[in-house]
Amino acid sequence: PLSSSFGGGCSRRLKPAVVVVRAEAQPINPEIRKAEEKVVDTVLVPELSKPLTAYCRCWRSGTFPLCDGSHVKHNKATGDNVGPLLVKKQ
Amino acid sequence: PLSSSFGGGCSRRLKPAVVVVRAEAQPINPEIRKAEEKVVDTVLVPELSKPLTAYCRCWRSGTFPLCDGSHVKHNKATGDNVGPLLVKKQ
Ligand code: FES
Ligand code: FES
Repeated sequence: PLSSSFGGGCSRRLKPAVVVVRAEAQPINPEIRKAEEKVVDTVLVPELSKPLTAYCRCWRSGTFPLCDGSHVKHNKATGDNVGPLLVKKQ
Repeated sequence: PLSSSFGGGCSRRLKPAVVVVRAEAQPINPEIRKAEEKVVDTVLVPELSKPLTAYCRCWRSGTFPLCDGSHVKHNKATGDNVGPLLVKKQ
């Protein structure tokens, strides 16, 4: 049983207030192309220059839609496990 | 000025408690392949069967790594603007 008198002057036992905070569903893209209603990108396979290209799925890349490795920092900060999509030409 | 006496028996004015709740950085993948340290997928271009394939970047698809349209529900629920990566064979 908690004794609350931190308000000052009240010696009566008060029930502590319980505040329940529920997280709402959150956006996963904090800032990429927010003027667009939906961010969709297209990879044209014949135009791929390298045998392997990594595409971002963490929405934190500075070179989006390409992966720049920013998923590593995001995973460390949040305990997440996201990574890129690799497109392999052959 | 707020008059607080809801604890009962206290007629003195109390300062309302201020509770600041800050959202921490959140994971963006709630449940896909959480046993894997990092979820990376590879598209082998010569094995693509369709001229156009959509890959999920919202981490909500029931057919991940493919897009099943679940980004629409996620965007509506959160105000987000994410969408798939389209891989176009030719
Ligand atoms: S930077 Fe986003 S997946 Fe690598
Ligand atoms: S279902 Fe995830 S981007 Fe479409």
